Amino acid sequence: MERFELHILGCGSALPTMRHNPTAQVVARGDKLFMVDCGEGSQLQMRRSRLSFARLHHVFISHLHGDHCFGLMGLISTLSLLGRTGTFHIHAPAELEGLLRPWLNFFCKGASFQVEIHAFDTRRSSVVYEDRTMSVATIPLRHRMPCCGFLFREKPGLPHIRRDMVDYLGIPNYALRGIKEGNGWTTAEGQVIPHERLVTPAAPPRSYAYCSDTAYLPGNAVLLEGVNLLFHEATFQQSEAARAEETLHSTAAQAATLARNCHAKKLVIGHYSARYDDEKGLLEEARAIFPETVPAYEGLCVPIE
Amino acid sequence: MERFELHILGCGSALPTMRHNPTAQVVARGDKLFMVDCGEGSQLQMRRSRLSFARLHHVFISHLHGDHCFGLMGLISTLSLLGRTGTFHIHAPAELEGLLRPWLNFFCKGASFQVEIHAFDTRRSSVVYEDRTMSVATIPLRHRMPCCGFLFREKPGLPHIRRDMVDYLGIPNYALRGIKEGNGWTTAEGQVIPHERLVTPAAPPRSYAYCSDTAYLPGNAVLLEGVNLLFHEATFQQSEAARAEETLHSTAAQAATLARNCHAKKLVIGHYSARYDDEKGLLEEARAIFPETVPAYEGLCVPIE
Repeated sequence: MERFELHILGCGSALPTMRHNPTAQVVARGDKLFMVDCGEGSQLQMRRSRLSFARLHHVFISHLHGDHCFGLMGLISTLSLLGRTGTFHIHAPAELEGLLRPWLNFFCKGASFQVEIHAFDTRRSSVVYEDRTMSVATIPLRHRMPCCGFLFREKPGLPHIRRDMVDYLGIPNYALRGIKEGNGWTTAEGQVIPHERLVTPAAPPRSYAYCSDTAYLPGNAVLLEGVNLLFHEATFQQSEAARAEETLHSTAAQAATLARNCHAKKLVIGHYSARYDDEKGLLEEARAIFPETVPAYEGLCVPIE
Repeated sequence: MERFELHILGCGSALPTMRHNPTAQVVARGDKLFMVDCGEGSQLQMRRSRLSFARLHHVFISHLHGDHCFGLMGLISTLSLLGRTGTFHIHAPAELEGLLRPWLNFFCKGASFQVEIHAFDTRRSSVVYEDRTMSVATIPLRHRMPCCGFLFREKPGLPHIRRDMVDYLGIPNYALRGIKEGNGWTTAEGQVIPHERLVTPAAPPRSYAYCSDTAYLPGNAVLLEGVNLLFHEATFQQSEAARAEETLHSTAAQAATLARNCHAKKLVIGHYSARYDDEKGLLEEARAIFPETVPAYEGLCVPIE
């Protein structure tokens, strides 16, 4: 099975602390890396997590608060200094282009690669990236400015050939691709072996959902139904629920409730307010509702399974 | 004597590494802090060095390469989140205003304080900051874009009152200010005591010079004559002198030669190329020419004396 994992580069909130960097993550699938948000210092955190810049072609920016995008210029400058050639794609709310382009023109003049900025509509869920094996769709969120999360979803894979049946029936190699894609097999004696007896089912497609920054949106449980791994912001404890509502953030209890309601396999919480000296209270609150909760920290790697 | 010290926040060069942050320093004098350059992550390094944001009112930017200024937005955003009120001054080459202002308008809309950007002419030395006790002048440098260093210079202080003489002569308190400023004293008997016998001289004014990024400019020894502390970039070892010349950087030997020729008391080298796994070679090379050389590292604090 291909590698599919989440790396936390930063899980603090707006005010950086000595304990947490601003928000950034990398989703690794197969040999590709996808960055989600890019707070100040993300490029250094990527190095610390030993993730290769050469494998990174797409960055998804949830919204244009500084703690989610101030690391972009440093990252792109470094790619330029490293002599990158492949196009670098940024998926973000529409206003980023007008802000970033003049800086790119000035600071990365003569770069050996293109930076393409793809705007998405933050008001509805749409597919913003797709390849042979995976898609990324936006998740509309509610924050103090236009904001989206991202849903990474594997496409259903082909079933696995049953080696024992193939050997027993003497099926030649040239026929195997067709069988993977749904064919049966007819023996020399004219006996028809149905497809289902020749294969075992593919592993079910895996998925990862990123939800930050947002007020609690119980309705998103429908879109997130059955997600393997959910990252949900948990800026505050429930005792600060009023403050969460006012700033359009979530509490740890709300994050856990959403994870439970959408039947997530696992929850990672993060985007901790700088007011907390540690995450014990947030974690206890979430685990009381959804036991499979893990607290994010810089350098954490969680397999998506 | 008032505190006067240099704090290194970052001393790497364009490519950040896991060993060094991009360039930033803080000069602390009395209760004021002055930042010199502001690479990505500077605000976090400031926290690590336990330097108070509230005491920082002026940032000096040598030139507009990303590794010297990409930390500005993060720093200013944080000041805004902390509810700062005092004006924040940035002294920089002219092009910064056009680049930074749209970002400030977008990301720091409604900030509780003003950001003033003061442009300086990089082709000549001029005073860009002055208060009661200190001035900061630019040092023209030669790099791939307009670039200046900065010379921090204390103003001559008033002499110290000789307590023993004051007590012996019974000089009243109201007269002391005048004596500090140059007066003598006439006793009730009409004896004139000259100023010089009533005071000990003030400590000589101290100075700090920052030179990065630049080709080796031997002529700057005149401007820097007698400087107490010199920071000079030492991107390369002498074995890479051709590369230094091509990229308009300096070698450790060149930095040390300038320190020797301007009779600096102490030299700090930094802005190390990412190609060096440690700074041993750079340091040995510099010390062979100028023994009072110290290698910069993140968190280093050097008194200016």
